[in-house]
Amino acid sequence: MKTETTIQGLTASLAPARSSKKLIGFVPTMGNLHEGHLTLVREAKKLCDVVVVSIFVNPIQFGAGEDFESYPRTLEQDSRLLADVGCDIIFAPTVEQMYGTQPRLTNISVGQITDDLCGQSRPGHFDGVAVVVTKLFNIVQPDFAFFGQKDYQQLAVIRQLVQDLNMPLEVIGVPIVRAEDGLALSSRNGYLTEQQRAVAPTIYQLLKQAEQQLHEGQALSQVLESISTQLTQAGFVVDYVEARQTNLQPIQQFDQNLVLFVAAKLGSTRLIDNLQIDFKT
Amino acid sequence: MKTETTIQGLTASLAPARSSKKLIGFVPTMGNLHEGHLTLVREAKKLCDVVVVSIFVNPIQFGAGEDFESYPRTLEQDSRLLADVGCDIIFAPTVEQMYGTQPRLTNISVGQITDDLCGQSRPGHFDGVAVVVTKLFNIVQPDFAFFGQKDYQQLAVIRQLVQDLNMPLEVIGVPIVRAEDGLALSSRNGYLTEQQRAVAPTIYQLLKQAEQQLHEGQALSQVLESISTQLTQAGFVVDYVEARQTNLQPIQQFDQNLVLFVAAKLGSTRLIDNLQIDFKT
Repeated sequence: MKTETTIQGLTASLAPARSSKKLIGFVPTMGNLHEGHLTLVREAKKLCDVVVVSIFVNPIQFGAGEDFESYPRTLEQDSRLLADVGCDIIFAPTVEQMYGTQPRLTNISVGQITDDLCGQSRPGHFDGVAVVVTKLFNIVQPDFAFFGQKDYQQLAVIRQLVQDLNMPLEVIGVPIVRAEDGLALSSRNGYLTEQQRAVAPTIYQLLKQAEQQLHEGQALSQVLESISTQLTQAGFVVDYVEARQTNLQPIQQFDQNLVLFVAAKLGSTRLIDNLQIDFKT
Repeated sequence: MKTETTIQGLTASLAPARSSKKLIGFVPTMGNLHEGHLTLVREAKKLCDVVVVSIFVNPIQFGAGEDFESYPRTLEQDSRLLADVGCDIIFAPTVEQMYGTQPRLTNISVGQITDDLCGQSRPGHFDGVAVVVTKLFNIVQPDFAFFGQKDYQQLAVIRQLVQDLNMPLEVIGVPIVRAEDGLALSSRNGYLTEQQRAVAPTIYQLLKQAEQQLHEGQALSQVLESISTQLTQAGFVVDYVEARQTNLQPIQQFDQNLVLFVAAKLGSTRLIDNLQIDFKT
């Protein structure tokens, strides 16, 4: 496994694979890797000949007062984990390597599907994601790029971006990896106190409970309301509890497949999760 | 020479060149080709093994009340001209082929350098250019892309876009091609009446006169004012007469290289031109 910290180095490392037409898989991450990330890499290994994992805490997707400075940087540990799952190349650039020394004048916005859910409480976040992902795609030029479904809205934004701009690659969404107690794996789980960590799986429990209630025919609005109430009772500060079609469009009828979305804070840690609910058609 | 009207067809046509690592040159146009465009193709032929010319009148770069509907579409004539200069592939997609049937949610904005000059009188124009050029780059995946310096601000926007988003290609700017009387070649010159066509070269004459005046030490503000006055006297409605550094930043000192920019209407036809003024350093 090689680690490259410059675009030039990465390009040189990828040149043999590119000339011999090997399939290149790409897993963009912000590091502090957990089993969710490693699952992305394993999926990439199944489909591709060469797998590149980027580790870059992207400043422009963090808002004022968010955790850019404190976001965990654990490159050594990440490298060991990535070597174990067969990653071929780590791309770990500096901020200057990615954004240069001249001011960036270009912005990319994906409209509509970023207006609500996490877009509402994190203004500019998805623009920052769109810009860095576009840059990374142009640098790595992968055949396939792998993203977790935990960041469901992010995955939808990237699919839209790739489609709208005819980017020459395929986006693969990979199911959420959960702890045994159901908590969706996230680097931000590391911020939780022991007590908060014990409460955190409530989100998933309530999503599963909601799934059952919906299958039993309870009204969606009532089910959403109930999740929200119970989260608050458990000590969360709820950001949103919402339902959308799988393409993030508003629900039109109540027997179609849908996704439930939760974002809620425990102390200063913001957790998100989602669950797709399938109805027989 | 092949003509492809679909992305799939173009991709198939380019596959052999791509596998054999031939250098691909790309000249994006809106068709109605003149000697300016053909010069771009000749430059591309010098540097590249395979040259793709796109012909696409891009609806999203035209504003309300602009000439999208009436913009001349002359594919047959364009094809003959392109065959003569050795173009390898024409890519002439429909609007549906380029933009699909689903709504586009992604926008690209290049800030600051699009705020004035043509950006001011054509709101949204450069966003539309940035989106279509990004799409075309992703479809063609060229090694080099060629743009005329007549659309100087557009060229600057595309250079910025490519740099900011790490697009894997090189942008080549090609000098303005002029009629014998100095008028910068443009598809929109075809809109001019005989009488307007006789007046149109005044723009270039005034730019050349300004160059001499600046070299003689006249004040820039006075020189710009004089161009504007004389254009009005000649029957133009002036949109702007401006000077900028070659990177479009405001002039800081009066002995540095600069570019003079003119946009003015004759009747309903909007003409633009520019001239770089070099000072010995």
